[in-house]
Amino acid sequence: MMNIHSKFETQMQVRPDDIDLFQHVHSSRYMDYVLAARYEQMARCYGMSWEEFIKRGLGWYLTATTMNFLRPLGLGDRFIVRTWIEEFLADDAGVRVRFEIEKQETGKRCFSGHAEYKLVNLAVNRAVRIPEDIKARYSI
Amino acid sequence: MMNIHSKFETQMQVRPDDIDLFQHVHSSRYMDYVLAARYEQMARCYGMSWEEFIKRGLGWYLTATTMNFLRPLGLGDRFIVRTWIEEFLADDAGVRVRFEIEKQETGKRCFSGHAEYKLVNLAVNRAVRIPEDIKARYSI
Amino acid sequence: MMNIHSKFETQMQVRPDDIDLFQHVHSSRYMDYVLAARYEQMARCYGMSWEEFIKRGLGWYLTATTMNFLRPLGLGDRFIVRTWIEEFLADDAGVRVRFEIEKQETGKRCFSGHAEYKLVNLAVNRAVRIPEDIKARYSI
Amino acid sequence: MMNIHSKFETQMQVRPDDIDLFQHVHSSRYMDYVLAARYEQMARCYGMSWEEFIKRGLGWYLTATTMNFLRPLGLGDRFIVRTWIEEFLADDAGVRVRFEIEKQETGKRCFSGHAEYKLVNLAVNRAVRIPEDIKARYSI
Repeated sequence: MMNIHSKFETQMQVRPDDIDLFQHVHSSRYMDYVLAARYEQMARCYGMSWEEFIKRGLGWYLTATTMNFLRPLGLGDRFIVRTWIEEFLADDAGVRVRFEIEKQETGKRCFSGHAEYKLVNLAVNRAVRIPEDIKARYSI
Repeated sequence: MMNIHSKFETQMQVRPDDIDLFQHVHSSRYMDYVLAARYEQMARCYGMSWEEFIKRGLGWYLTATTMNFLRPLGLGDRFIVRTWIEEFLADDAGVRVRFEIEKQETGKRCFSGHAEYKLVNLAVNRAVRIPEDIKARYSI
Repeated sequence: MMNIHSKFETQMQVRPDDIDLFQHVHSSRYMDYVLAARYEQMARCYGMSWEEFIKRGLGWYLTATTMNFLRPLGLGDRFIVRTWIEEFLADDAGVRVRFEIEKQETGKRCFSGHAEYKLVNLAVNRAVRIPEDIKARYSI
Repeated sequence: MMNIHSKFETQMQVRPDDIDLFQHVHSSRYMDYVLAARYEQMARCYGMSWEEFIKRGLGWYLTATTMNFLRPLGLGDRFIVRTWIEEFLADDAGVRVRFEIEKQETGKRCFSGHAEYKLVNLAVNRAVRIPEDIKARYSI
């Protein structure tokens, strides 16, 4: 049985301070774009905002990521960040999210990869199992 | 005779990577917001994009700025960056730009200040007088 | 009677991610250099670290700054950040700090300015008068 | 036959502007630390600085990376970035570099991973084979 999760898209634009000495978006800013898209999609698409997680004392921590830099984005480029859950990790210890960035003008893929996040109880700074209600929200 | 220049507005949103250890937008990111707004307004409002300046071998360099931090912006906040030319510097050596940032939800001013930019010939890295056609575009 | 405060120096080096599209240190990173120097000098020179302020529920918030960009720093440059207290603000509501950055190789000044910080009770997010013991530490 | 390359170390310290809303070093800054260490090691350890590459019209572009976030670094932490070449890619199209970050105070590993870089002719923005003299320098 396949386990397919919805893909969500966020439109963004390169800020001049994202540009590096090679005149392209600095490589570490792609991670920030994925973070910004997930932040926005948490509230809009999964119906539970980052701030609601914080109120429950929870936050997602990045534990691992693999990223492919396919084509550079440049000054002023508009782009789409597409993200989706690939799977829940064993024992609901976290999620593996896939992402890709597409340049709007050309429709060409510039960046792709995946990341694993664990859910952390911020008060004690320890990973926790994803609660059932949150898992349900993320199972769309 | 008063010399009043048009005010222009750009809407933006705080990115999670802009937040600092006090849970507010990091102070240096406000400068980046003003830069992003000026970049966008150069093309849309003044009719001569940053890229067109570059093609002519020109770029604006920041030489001085004064900034007031009035109220912090936080995670996810939407805001308006308003900028306008206050005056051309003596001998058309540059411009003084004023700016302010307003939080969209409350309409309250969060940040204000001004900055001086000189126009630089990028090939020789030297300040130049603002050419007449550029001064005309900036005189709206 | 003059009120002269000690000047302190911190040596730093430009990181490649500080470089912007003009191949110079991005203007907003100079603020980050001053912050890094003050952070380091709080513990080493004033004998009360940032972390100790946090433990007492206190933090310094930037309220205003004026900065002059004199000569650009570039990739790999080593530099000295010199900072000192100019004066305590009225009613001990804060401090005005002056700073300057000097490129190590040439000894030339690249950046100068001043900033006002207020002391904030982080629990209620309100400015407080500088406590006597802290004022004493900062009066060197 | 094993192909073992030298490991090089660079000491660095967290800057306050690296800290994110969870009070830890922001995940994308680890990439910047690796970049800063490679930059420094290029000149000091491999005997050919970034600037010399630029003079020859060459630059290293990141094409892919995998990163593991093991333990967070925090405000003021000192750390060691260790990097080494794992192997040259097929047809000398690039290098795979491994890296790890260790917190100085505890000696514990906080971050590890690897990255692939290709060498680019900056004038035409195209990947090139690693020239023999550069390969020799990197074969230590």
